[in-house]
Formats: sequence, C-alpha cells, structure tokens
Amino acid sequence: MGETDRAALEARLAERRAALADLSAEIAEIEAALGGAVSPLAPDAFPEMPAVPGLRLAAGHAGVKYRDRDDVMLAELAEGSVMAGTFTRSATRAAPVLWCEERLRALADAPSGRIGIVVNAGNANAFTGANGMASVEAVMTAAGEALGIESGRMFMASTGVIGEPLPHNRITAKLADLTEALSEEAFPAAARAIMTTDTFAKGASAMVQLDGDVTISGFAKGSGMIAPDMATMLVFIFTDCAIAQPLLQAAVARLTDLTFNAITVDSDTSTSDTLLVGATGRAEMEPILEVDDPRLAAFEGGLRYVMQDLALQVVRDGEGATKQVEITVTGAESDLAARRIGLAIANSPLVKTAVAGEDPNWGRIVMAVGKSGEAADRDQLSIRFGEILVAEKGWVAASYREEDGAAYMRGEDLEITVDVGVGTGEATVWTCDLTKRYIEINADYRS
Amino acid sequence: MGETDRAALEARLAERRAALADLSAEIAEIEAALGGAVSPLAPDAFPEMPAVPGLRLAAGHAGVKYRDRDDVMLAELAEGSVMAGTFTRSATRAAPVLWCEERLRALADAPSGRIGIVVNAGNANAFTGANGMASVEAVMTAAGEALGIESGRMFMASTGVIGEPLPHNRITAKLADLTEALSEEAFPAAARAIMTTDTFAKGASAMVQLDGDVTISGFAKGSGMIAPDMATMLVFIFTDCAIAQPLLQAAVARLTDLTFNAITVDSDTSTSDTLLVGATGRAEMEPILEVDDPRLAAFEGGLRYVMQDLALQVVRDGEGATKQVEITVTGAESDLAARRIGLAIANSPLVKTAVAGEDPNWGRIVMAVGKSGEAADRDQLSIRFGEILVAEKGWVAASYREEDGAAYMRGEDLEITVDVGVGTGEATVWTCDLTKRYIEINADYRS
Repeated sequence: MGETDRAALEARLAERRAALADLSAEIAEIEAALGGAVSPLAPDAFPEMPAVPGLRLAAGHAGVKYRDRDDVMLAELAEGSVMAGTFTRSATRAAPVLWCEERLRALADAPSGRIGIVVNAGNANAFTGANGMASVEAVMTAAGEALGIESGRMFMASTGVIGEPLPHNRITAKLADLTEALSEEAFPAAARAIMTTDTFAKGASAMVQLDGDVTISGFAKGSGMIAPDMATMLVFIFTDCAIAQPLLQAAVARLTDLTFNAITVDSDTSTSDTLLVGATGRAEMEPILEVDDPRLAAFEGGLRYVMQDLALQVVRDGEGATKQVEITVTGAESDLAARRIGLAIANSPLVKTAVAGEDPNWGRIVMAVGKSGEAADRDQLSIRFGEILVAEKGWVAASYREEDGAAYMRGEDLEITVDVGVGTGEATVWTCDLTKRYIEINADYRS
Repeated sequence: MGETDRAALEARLAERRAALADLSAEIAEIEAALGGAVSPLAPDAFPEMPAVPGLRLAAGHAGVKYRDRDDVMLAELAEGSVMAGTFTRSATRAAPVLWCEERLRALADAPSGRIGIVVNAGNANAFTGANGMASVEAVMTAAGEALGIESGRMFMASTGVIGEPLPHNRITAKLADLTEALSEEAFPAAARAIMTTDTFAKGASAMVQLDGDVTISGFAKGSGMIAPDMATMLVFIFTDCAIAQPLLQAAVARLTDLTFNAITVDSDTSTSDTLLVGATGRAEMEPILEVDDPRLAAFEGGLRYVMQDLALQVVRDGEGATKQVEITVTGAESDLAARRIGLAIANSPLVKTAVAGEDPNWGRIVMAVGKSGEAADRDQLSIRFGEILVAEKGWVAASYREEDGAAYMRGEDLEITVDVGVGTGEATVWTCDLTKRYIEINADYRS
C-alpha cells in the first residue's frame, strides 16, 4: 500500500469512527425516549400474580435518585407472620444487609407477629460509614411507627449507587402515603419500584396443594453485579403457608444454592444482595412444624419453582444479554466441583463473547474447564451443544460438523453439557452472553 | 407518547441500528486493510535488542493458519546452554506444554549443551487427543535432526486456535529453510512470527554488569486469555549469563509471581502459557553456582526488569485496551491476600468498564474488595486514585471532589491504591480496561 493510499484510508477510518460515535449517541437517545431498551429475552408481560392472604404492598415515588418513576416499596405482613432470608457474603456489605441479618438472628427465637419491609432503589446505602446504619435506623423507626410495628420486626433493602449517603428523609416523608396505599393487589407496581438497570419487572408465583391451597408469589430485581455468592440481587417472596421459621429458613438456604447461587451475569457480587421470604400463615392448614412433615417437600417444590423462575428472569435481563445459556457439568469429583467448573465456564469472558458472536468455539470451554482448578480428565472430556455431540475423549467428535454447531448457536436458549470424566458430581448453572451493550450500560451507569 | 410517535421512533431506531451494523463492518474492513488496529497503548517502535552471544533465531512462513505473515520461529542455543521455565497450571494444558514440562524435568540433572526451540502461531495444538503429542514429537524429531540436536533437548510452544489438529507437516517442511536462516539479529522477526491477536510485537532487554557485561533479551506474545496462573502467554528470554540451571529455575519461578502472574486482561487462563528462559553461558564470567553468590541478585534484577517490561507490554496490548491500570493493595492479612484482592479488583467487569468509561466509580472497587473472599475492614478501607484520596475510614473522603476523580480517570496510565486496614500484606497487579473492542475481537476471532 502506498503512503497516499494509507493516508486516505486512515482519514476515512477517522471519519467513519466519528460517524459511529454520533450514531451510537442517537440510538441511545431514541432508546431512552422509548423508555429504555427492553431485553430481547424479556417475557411478553408481567405474570398474573395471585394475592397472598395477609400481605399488603405499596409503591411510591420518594425521589431518592430517579425523578419520574416509583423508587420505594413498602410491604406489610399480618399478625402471625415469620421471616426467613439469605444475604450477600461480601466483606463490604451494606448497612441494610447488616440490619436484616441482625433482625433475622433476633427473630429466629421470637414468636410470629406482624412484619414490615421497606425497599428503595437508586441508592444502595453501601460504604456510607456510620451514617449508613443511622439512615437505616431512621427509616425503620419511622416506618415501624407508620405501620404500628416495632422497629425490631422491620426489614430494609436498598439498591443502587454505592458510596453516596442515603437521603433517608425523602423516604420517611413518603411513609404515610405508602401506608395509606397498602393493597393486596400491588405486585406489578412493587416489582417496578425496586428496579435499577433492569429492563423489565420480574414476578413469579406458584400454587401448592397442601391441606388446602397455598400461594407463593414473589418478585425480584437484578441485572448487573450478579454472581453467585448468595442471592446477588433483591428478591422478596411471600406465602400464606403456615410453617415454623427454622424450617422455612432451612428451605430457603438450601434452595438458594440451587437457584440464585447458580446464576451469574458478570461474576461481580453485590454488597446488597438480599432474599427475604415471608410466610403469613393465613392458609387453611395445620402449621408445618416438623422436618419430617411430608407437606414440607411439596411446599419446597413450589418455593423452588418460584425461586428458579425469578433467578432465570434475572439472567434473561442480564445487562446486554441476547442469549440465555444453561451449563450442566457432569462427571466431576463432587457436586461442588461440578458447580465450580460450571461457573468457570459461565464467567469466562471468552466463552461469553463466543456465545454473543454465535461462534461454536468449544475450545474456549476446554480452556475454562482447565482454569477452574477442579479435577478433569483432559482425555475423557466430552462436550455437547444441546443434543449435538461436539467433543468426546479429549478431541472433536468424529460425527461433529462445524455447521451444526454454528446453527445451534444461533438459538436464543442454549444448553451446554460438559462431562469431565473423573467422578459422579454434577451441577447446573445459568448465565447470559457478554455483548457490547454490557459495556455501554456499565461505562455510563453513574455519570 | 402517542402510538404514532412511538411507531415512528421505533422505525427510526431499527433504521439507525442497521446503519450502525453497516458502519461497524466498514470500519472493521478498513482496519483490516490497514493491517489491523494497533493498541493506542503500544510503544512507538520495537526496541533495539542487543544480540545474546550463543543465541541464533529465525522466523518463517509455514502457513499453519495465517496466509501472509510469518508464523513459525526457530531458536538455537549454543553448546553450554541451560534452560529454565514455568508453564500454565491449567488442567487441560496443551501437548507442547506437557512436552516442555517433561523435558525440563529430565534436563534439570543433565549437563549443559545445545538446545533448540520451535514455536508456531495460529494453532495451539491443545485438546487434540493423542494426535497432539504425536505432532509435537514429529516436529521435535525433525527440528532436532535439522539442527543436529537430540530431540530430548528440544522445546516447543504453540499458540492459536484450540481443538484443531496441528498440520505439523507444514512446519517440518520449513525446518531446513529456518535452520539456514538462523541469525543473531532476528529478534524483531521472531517476535512478530509468534503473534496471534497481538497488535504489536513485544521485546525488552537489559544489560547487567557482573564480571563483565551480561545481556538479557526477550520477547513475548499475548493479548487475550491472559490471567495469572503462570505466564499466561508465550515468553522467550535469553541471556549469555553463566549460571547453574537450578539457580536459574528458582529465579524464574520467583520472578514469575511478581510479574507475569500479577497481570490480567480477562481472567481467562490459556492452555498453552509458556515461559522459557535460556542461558548460553557465553558471557565472560565465572559461572554463578551458589545461591549466596552476590552476583545472583544483580542478575535477577536485570531478569526482573525484562520480565516486568514484557508483562506490562502484554497488558498494554490487552484486547481492546485503552488504559493501563496499576492496582496496589496494602493492609491485607498477607501478601497473598493482597494479591487476591488486587486481582478481584483487576478482574471485575464492573471496575474495568468504569475505567473504560472514565468514570471514577470507586463504589465498584469497594464491591470488588468485598467479593474477593479476603479479610477487609469495611470501616478502615481507604482508596486513592493516583495522589487523590478518594475514600477513607469506610466513606468518601471529606477532601474528595468528584471532578478531580473524573479528571484523573481521563489519563492513560492509572494507579489505584487500596488499603484494607487489617494487616501488613501488600501486592501490586496490573490490568487494562474492558471496552467494546474486546467484545468485537472475541465474538469474531474464530469465524
């Protein structure tokens, strides 16, 4: 190439890059005018959510950060309620998380009673020094007074920007209105009020037949900073089941590992992850009081369904996601080892970008298995995309054709199965692809 | 917004998105015509590299994958040479890595002698079953014959696509030409021949004054799939120092932790990472034979300089990188804990995208410290951007102004210092930002 040609090409490149920046800005503007881009993996609509007897919800606008949408949610659980929960294990967890952990410990031995929850979006009240806990206490005291519930039975969760003081007066100023507005029918509004970078509201419910019908209805928010180490998002699930608190707590902890702790968007763990599950005990049934009560398994089945559904909705709203990926690992030394290998694959930027590019690049899966630190027999490794056998015994399968893999990767819901050939441990985890849109969202989130 | 307005906006959005796709494709085409985009962090030119007495290099075109560039490199170390090395710890490491590990073990007790190295780019010969080792043996035998060196003193490294059989005949067909072309002056050509997605060739050298002058010259490739767990790239360093093999091996292992194992681009660990350090013993000096020889520290100082320089060049060529970030963690329970916290920050997609967006989002650093799993005192945490005190005692510093942080983040070489307030452990790691360009490169690499 001559010097003149090169200079001309470089000038054209600079001009085209400038045009690209302009076009990107215009697209972002149109998307904002349309109310933000909704994930292509979003469900068609927020589901019908059956009311939970004994539960009332309200949503409102406190202006914590967002100017023209609801950003605060109040929940009231009637007399006879118990609460269970799991939280982020981050060493820098936020003040509301510390508050909830303490309340849960204190209430584990307490009788059932009324319970309240306040949630705000836009400010996480994390890394806010001693002021952080003072803000929680101010909101909890005021909300307890508004509801007529002692503050020791009040819970709080906050999500949004880290490191800025929570303007808690804006929340307390709205508590009277919120209390006034409490209703059994407010699931959609409550689910919307707790969103941050979410592109759709997330709800799920199940009915379980025990003595009579038991309802389980919940909602969640979460889209970025999602990685397994507890719930990694905010989740609130309610049921009218009558169940002893220790049994509910044990079920929640166990099911969290199979659902919310098995999903990852970007390997980043939030300082604010909170899952609260409240049971009002209003269903027509004898309470479940013993671990060998056969109804416990049926209830757990319904609860798992709701938790799994909400967890997958979070993956499907992963920042910039265009594909959901289910990764099943078998043949590992243990179930835990299988989960670690699954997460090494699910968190690998090279795997996630290959999925985004619809590239059946199974070599990157081999790489991720290798870096997981868990035992794997390189010469027994097998990989499947859906039903397609891609690799076996440590090499590409004789029957595999690249065009089959490429066609499979064009789908929206992908299943990758890996057998590592050393034992009987297995696990399934879920993630989404890594696209330019993730970068856009996160390079501009705060500014 | 009315339905008509909305439909019009949606139509405009679809049209603009199509235009964006066209423009992106055109830009990629122009970049390819210009020989690919070079990292904005690249040095102005490949450095002057002093020849290493006893070392000869040659580069050539075998057509393993690339059609119009050199893709194979041959090195010959003269009589009296010893070799040291470190390798990926991946459980799925490639056949050439297994070969080199075995050779190094066998040669640890062997006398010095002639040594050869063959490197190819474009195909990693990883996850290629039993054929993988057969290909290595074929190349090693043929290259040993061409050089007159027994194959047990030959080393090999391969980099590129995983899971495709290495067309080793294309390499062996070129060995006669390569042997013919061996020269003491071929550093730039050798450094270019081993590149894959690298946008510039990487070389570094140092002179150390022992009895007389000792030369250390090396080159490296690496740009993606870079994460600390050994060298995470291909690195070849040569010196005329006369030094016992066990002392050289110990120095290389120790310095790897401080240099190549302290960098990360994307947290992904290659199956092929190889660092080989060959010493020809041709310098005018008495050999270094004892660990308490005072010249050992001086030699190690020079070797560290070269290793560190090459490691930082890899970071600066990180796929899509526009900024280099040095992260220093102090006050940790141990140096290892400090390194883990540093890498949790360096590998966080949310931190890396904030850097890309020039957003002084220190909240994400707090998040990454929290998720590292290492002890940290949330209420003693302090963070600095360069000289700017951003946070102290678990909250934003009174003196901190957001505009100062924003101005700092516009720089190209960033330094982030975090004190976690629990001990005296410290470590420094290096990374780059995460940009849309990373996604582009990796969503399209293989197809």
